[in-house]
Amino acid sequence: MKAEHINPFVSALVTTFRTMLSCEARRGSLAVKQDSRAAHEVSGVIGLSGNAVGTVVVSFSTEVAIKAASTMLMTEATRIDDDVLDAVGELTNMVAGAAKAQLEEFNMMVSLPSVITGSAHEVHFPSEVTPIGISFDTDWGPISLEVGLAPKREVAGV
Amino acid sequence: MKAEHINPFVSALVTTFRTMLSCEARRGSLAVKQDSRAAHEVSGVIGLSGNAVGTVVVSFSTEVAIKAASTMLMTEATRIDDDVLDAVGELTNMVAGAAKAQLEEFNMMVSLPSVITGSAHEVHFPSEVTPIGISFDTDWGPISLEVGLAPKREVAGV
Repeated sequence: MKAEHINPFVSALVTTFRTMLSCEARRGSLAVKQDSRAAHEVSGVIGLSGNAVGTVVVSFSTEVAIKAASTMLMTEATRIDDDVLDAVGELTNMVAGAAKAQLEEFNMMVSLPSVITGSAHEVHFPSEVTPIGISFDTDWGPISLEVGLAPKREVAGV
Repeated sequence: MKAEHINPFVSALVTTFRTMLSCEARRGSLAVKQDSRAAHEVSGVIGLSGNAVGTVVVSFSTEVAIKAASTMLMTEATRIDDDVLDAVGELTNMVAGAAKAQLEEFNMMVSLPSVITGSAHEVHFPSEVTPIGISFDTDWGPISLEVGLAPKREVAGV
């Protein structure tokens, strides 16, 4: 994917954290993703489709997921429960939604977010897609963003 | 989601396995998914969006993933490598693509497949969506299909 297409996702993440959570997310290093190990323990995954297809992964450390959910829901979460998973899915949805609005040329829609947990889970992209990964440091701990975008592919009819 | 909307996914899976892999997949029990533990070790995940949004998860036992990839690629895979992951993603893509063609009223598009691995990984759906899970028995071992579909949701602008 083109590097210029990552910027809408970065700014969407920063803006989402700032407006929804009053939390500053500071962008760290950008890397072409070499391995598929999820950066953290809880990963929100959402698909994009339209004139390009893509996947957005926002990976939260457990502590950031719990703090973010507590702030969004105005409760005090203490462990990864359904509310926290929903909050992670919703934040991932907002990041993807805000980014797609800035990528009008692709006229994309977002799918339903899913949230992956499990020790050492890995999210693999198709090998023809080279995802870009960016780490962020927040007041609550680390998160990471991974985006893979590709030209629209034809689905083989069966 | 409505039960009648699951049938296109079931027939898409059976047809995909039959035509792409010459492998019969026999439908087993259908259940409203209560937990989020992935049924097997390797899960293909793909998003759908349009007039409904959804997620399709096809979960493969390791042995089925390896056999399926070996058949598709006409090689002899022996472990979960990039080729096997790509084959799982592509089969998931075909199942979603064939099913959406039968669900014309939703005018959906598929996103990019991603493939999740990791011991005891879990794929969580948003709590407002009740996914339906169906187990299948194939000549090579078990697989399962999970589908969550929901009316189109508005993405909160940020």
